[in-house]
Amino acid sequence: MINVAVIGLGYWGPNLVRNFEAVDNAKVIYACDLLEENLMKIKKRYPNIKVTKDYKEILKDDKVDLICIATPPATHYKIAKECLESGKNVLIEKPMTTKVKDAEELIEIAKELNLYIFVDHTFVFSPPVRKIKEIINEIGKPLYFDSERINLGLLQKDVNVIWDLAPHDFSILTFLFNFKPKSLIAIGSKHKHPYYEDLAHIMIRYDNGFIAHIHVSWLSPVKIRKIIIAGDKKMILYDDTNPFEKVKVYDKGVEVDLSKESPFFPTYRSGDIYVPKIENKEPLRIEVEHIVDCLINKKKPLVDGYEGLKVVKLLEACDKSLREGKEVEIEW
Amino acid sequence: MINVAVIGLGYWGPNLVRNFEAVDNAKVIYACDLLEENLMKIKKRYPNIKVTKDYKEILKDDKVDLICIATPPATHYKIAKECLESGKNVLIEKPMTTKVKDAEELIEIAKELNLYIFVDHTFVFSPPVRKIKEIINEIGKPLYFDSERINLGLLQKDVNVIWDLAPHDFSILTFLFNFKPKSLIAIGSKHKHPYYEDLAHIMIRYDNGFIAHIHVSWLSPVKIRKIIIAGDKKMILYDDTNPFEKVKVYDKGVEVDLSKESPFFPTYRSGDIYVPKIENKEPLRIEVEHIVDCLINKKKPLVDGYEGLKVVKLLEACDKSLREGKEVEIEW
Amino acid sequence: MINVAVIGLGYWGPNLVRNFEAVDNAKVIYACDLLEENLMKIKKRYPNIKVTKDYKEILKDDKVDLICIATPPATHYKIAKECLESGKNVLIEKPMTTKVKDAEELIEIAKELNLYIFVDHTFVFSPPVRKIKEIINEIGKPLYFDSERINLGLLQKDVNVIWDLAPHDFSILTFLFNFKPKSLIAIGSKHKHPYYEDLAHIMIRYDNGFIAHIHVSWLSPVKIRKIIIAGDKKMILYDDTNPFEKVKVYDKGVEVDLSKESPFFPTYRSGDIYVPKIENKEPLRIEVEHIVDCLINKKKPLVDGYEGLKVVKLLEACDKSLREGKEVEIEW
Amino acid sequence: MINVAVIGLGYWGPNLVRNFEAVDNAKVIYACDLLEENLMKIKKRYPNIKVTKDYKEILKDDKVDLICIATPPATHYKIAKECLESGKNVLIEKPMTTKVKDAEELIEIAKELNLYIFVDHTFVFSPPVRKIKEIINEIGKPLYFDSERINLGLLQKDVNVIWDLAPHDFSILTFLFNFKPKSLIAIGSKHKHPYYEDLAHIMIRYDNGFIAHIHVSWLSPVKIRKIIIAGDKKMILYDDTNPFEKVKVYDKGVEVDLSKESPFFPTYRSGDIYVPKIENKEPLRIEVEHIVDCLINKKKPLVDGYEGLKVVKLLEACDKSLREGKEVEIEW
Repeated sequence: MINVAVIGLGYWGPNLVRNFEAVDNAKVIYACDLLEENLMKIKKRYPNIKVTKDYKEILKDDKVDLICIATPPATHYKIAKECLESGKNVLIEKPMTTKVKDAEELIEIAKELNLYIFVDHTFVFSPPVRKIKEIINEIGKPLYFDSERINLGLLQKDVNVIWDLAPHDFSILTFLFNFKPKSLIAIGSKHKHPYYEDLAHIMIRYDNGFIAHIHVSWLSPVKIRKIIIAGDKKMILYDDTNPFEKVKVYDKGVEVDLSKESPFFPTYRSGDIYVPKIENKEPLRIEVEHIVDCLINKKKPLVDGYEGLKVVKLLEACDKSLREGKEVEIEW
Repeated sequence: MINVAVIGLGYWGPNLVRNFEAVDNAKVIYACDLLEENLMKIKKRYPNIKVTKDYKEILKDDKVDLICIATPPATHYKIAKECLESGKNVLIEKPMTTKVKDAEELIEIAKELNLYIFVDHTFVFSPPVRKIKEIINEIGKPLYFDSERINLGLLQKDVNVIWDLAPHDFSILTFLFNFKPKSLIAIGSKHKHPYYEDLAHIMIRYDNGFIAHIHVSWLSPVKIRKIIIAGDKKMILYDDTNPFEKVKVYDKGVEVDLSKESPFFPTYRSGDIYVPKIENKEPLRIEVEHIVDCLINKKKPLVDGYEGLKVVKLLEACDKSLREGKEVEIEW
Repeated sequence: MINVAVIGLGYWGPNLVRNFEAVDNAKVIYACDLLEENLMKIKKRYPNIKVTKDYKEILKDDKVDLICIATPPATHYKIAKECLESGKNVLIEKPMTTKVKDAEELIEIAKELNLYIFVDHTFVFSPPVRKIKEIINEIGKPLYFDSERINLGLLQKDVNVIWDLAPHDFSILTFLFNFKPKSLIAIGSKHKHPYYEDLAHIMIRYDNGFIAHIHVSWLSPVKIRKIIIAGDKKMILYDDTNPFEKVKVYDKGVEVDLSKESPFFPTYRSGDIYVPKIENKEPLRIEVEHIVDCLINKKKPLVDGYEGLKVVKLLEACDKSLREGKEVEIEW
Repeated sequence: MINVAVIGLGYWGPNLVRNFEAVDNAKVIYACDLLEENLMKIKKRYPNIKVTKDYKEILKDDKVDLICIATPPATHYKIAKECLESGKNVLIEKPMTTKVKDAEELIEIAKELNLYIFVDHTFVFSPPVRKIKEIINEIGKPLYFDSERINLGLLQKDVNVIWDLAPHDFSILTFLFNFKPKSLIAIGSKHKHPYYEDLAHIMIRYDNGFIAHIHVSWLSPVKIRKIIIAGDKKMILYDDTNPFEKVKVYDKGVEVDLSKESPFFPTYRSGDIYVPKIENKEPLRIEVEHIVDCLINKKKPLVDGYEGLKVVKLLEACDKSLREGKEVEIEW
């Protein structure tokens, strides 16, 4: 039985509580938040969970195996470090940290102490993304990834829209492709937010010619969650707002015959569309089952600190590009 | 009666012939192309139109009032100059020219000779765009313009995807807003095309804080023709592939109360949606009627050489940005 | 404080428990089911609720104010009668009973004992249906109601698809229009179900010329929940599977000028579409709040036994029509 | 070379002219209508076609091989009879005639004189319907056909909505399945039309248990052209208003295990969806090519008089059912 503590009971924390309570071989024994109101909601719903405003109390309890850190990103590093140093495995909300060097330090500490860092890249566990991973080789040579992740709100008070939404796309990219990003440009604008970008476009170039474009916005009248992944053989459309047909595989392509350039002859192939059946299961449930399985059976996590670090590297590069107003190199 | 000649009978030319033949007070008297096959198609369909391979023949005929130039962009300048110098009014296919200085010279010549230059920005005449123009003030302060114009094919042999598709967006932007663009960045990639970008993103910054993003691609598995125009009061979605609901006006917005920043309080407004009825008429027909009306009644054209020039300026800036790999200033 | 008991913890009962637990001024004190497994699920989730396999225990407890009956339809009459006779108010799952005379008897008993019968026509409380009710007069003279309520599964073992799905439409019809149905024809087929119709069409004629058509099916590859309500001035489309635009009001109509019949001149009006904002709140939550309000403040219920009876009358007429293979009169 | 005459130049006739002019091995030599205006339009567009108000002129001309009859349905029988008796092959617009006995007589005459009767069931030639025919065996045992063919207008002055729209569905049904219809019920209502039904539902029972439901309406705010064809192995959705995905094949089904009825165990199968590529070609062009091929190479037509007769039998049964207000037997 894995004993779990959850720190941070705002928007996401209660989902962690609910899922760790629901799966086999785990139970939540602590829930922690600074707001009385958030503690009361958990207490009413789960009378057996101990609630506390002081997370240090959790660090001292030997029964705790895993601490979930669902506090604001700026606090992840400090809390995670204390948890690890108290000998606890951690699940850190995305983004893992707000600085590359902090993420690197956490990885180092965990390695020394032989502890697990899980990073909560929930999309990696979502059935549509797993289905895409399963069929990704069918697309042939990958050409580009294009994501639109836009809707109205919710403006965050302490981060820009890139830090809020782009980690989803970065984690999907990293999960699907093991490519090395070379450079990146981020362009944003502050329309309604006083300090932070509320709309941004990010373009990443990879060393193999692959490119990724990600459009994130808190200011769109329509909610769009759409990713196109194109290869030279097939193309995939992942539309997360479509309740019935989330993933479509297009047997489409174009070939250019260079041998007879003049005139120029591109050949288009436009075939059938295939809509694979997608399991209807909560991504976080799948993730939590995986985490419990890793802890009990000493398995390698799908999303460990190194994966979390990659996302932080991309986020830091976005910040740099926004600041300098130009394309920046990415250290990988 | 306006006597019309059409030079260039590839894809678009026959549409010009058909529409000038169909409207009142105009008739096509010449059709010109280098390919016998294209001439024969016109001849079979319109036995009364004279066909020729030599456009100089048209220049000499005093009966000709208007010459439509639907040849490849690289030839526009040379042919249009000869037409104007022969005393003919011209309708030039978009983009007007391939160089800013060429467009400026054509404008100068037309001014001296007191002739009309019409540029064929067909979208400006499309019923959805005209409806948006009609209601544009309802959106309050304009925030951004975001266009996605993507599909599979048709790769052009002599221009990149920006020159092929972005003039539509540039002309819509120029028609809807009289804003001054300040700088622009274009990012593209050549996936299947040997020489030219087949996928590109363009971001334009205006001096009033307005921004425009345009995504054009010949490599998308799905056909998307979607523009979001957001203001601080309302937001408009123009989806040209939706047969029944092309324009939607969202009573949506977000306000941030700066007086009580801590904590940060954005207020979202999400009201009704309004789908105005859009007339179902061919844009080119409306345009051709407008041109004939201008010529007969000496009216000012909606899209003259100055409008054509603006689009060429943006295209030239895109080329520069692609070449230099960075954001570039726009001279306006 | 209203003390609530819920009998029947299959599919719908737990939703009743959850909502009565969540609203102010009510709490669930008993949950009853024949299956140990269903009781355990409630017990685990709500440790303070007494669970029992014997509903007679509930009848004897003076603290119970309201009993929710979410058992199979065939048992509603017997259980509701005992509840009422024990002095309890009841909320009966739809359909209220399986026979008209049973519903009439329950109404009679409740009247004598001065008790409430609520019937759980949840759709009447759904925000889209309430919005339609609010604007229904805009449509002018109502012409027809056309509902498609089809999907794959879930075949019921003891009733046909009409008894399973059509009560939703019957209750919406009764809520929106106070028209008197005159006759009805039901046509069904048993494709996969051994005993009961798994696909059916119902056509109801009203004495004012209004007609309703309802298509219900357990055998459709696609899930459709779509109602068209047409008037001579406007028409409404209610598409419950559309997450963002559930209700659309079309400014559309047709007028036939009878004065100049030869030739025949219909005039079509096709104007704007209006998509009213729909509140996003669980219908059952709204309903439960209403029921608690009725009980505490002695208000008249929106859906009482008489409304429940109307739905049973239509269901009974459907059975008769299926049996006799022809249109049947409806006693109203 | 097949010489063609077209009688009736209202809505559909000009499409026949255009297509017979466009295909190889045929040309239109006569076009006939009672209205000068309709003749002038053809004359302007096709200066080489002789136009006439008197179709008897066409009957006398030996050069004419095929006469297309696109006049109102009530005149089909008389004109087609004269054409056949003058030794001309005929293409008759749908519905073939307004009476079963008239269609039978025409078939008889054509047989005796060794002439072709083609009936213009255009949908049979449409690429989506042909694709469905190609894959129809994949659905297993056919269960039902359900068509919704509704929109606003165009009310016809001399027939009801069944005669106007249902022939499309009847011809598709007849083309896809060779089943024997047993009985039929038609239910309609006259909302805006003074004499004829403007909305109707038709339910056809076949002797093998298959059923068809067809909903036709001139009074719907939305345009729907949707057919579901369900089999016990797969189900097909044909949505003719979807520009990109007209035909979808659902790997869905339900099995009921009768061996262990108590409790009742249906098993649902919900697998992938497959969207076959559909050729984008005008159905009438395909049909006209087929007709010319039949005439030149003495082939058997896909839609001959017998097929036309089947549709008229179903239409006549609908009339009878509407008149008698009940289900009627169909003689096949």
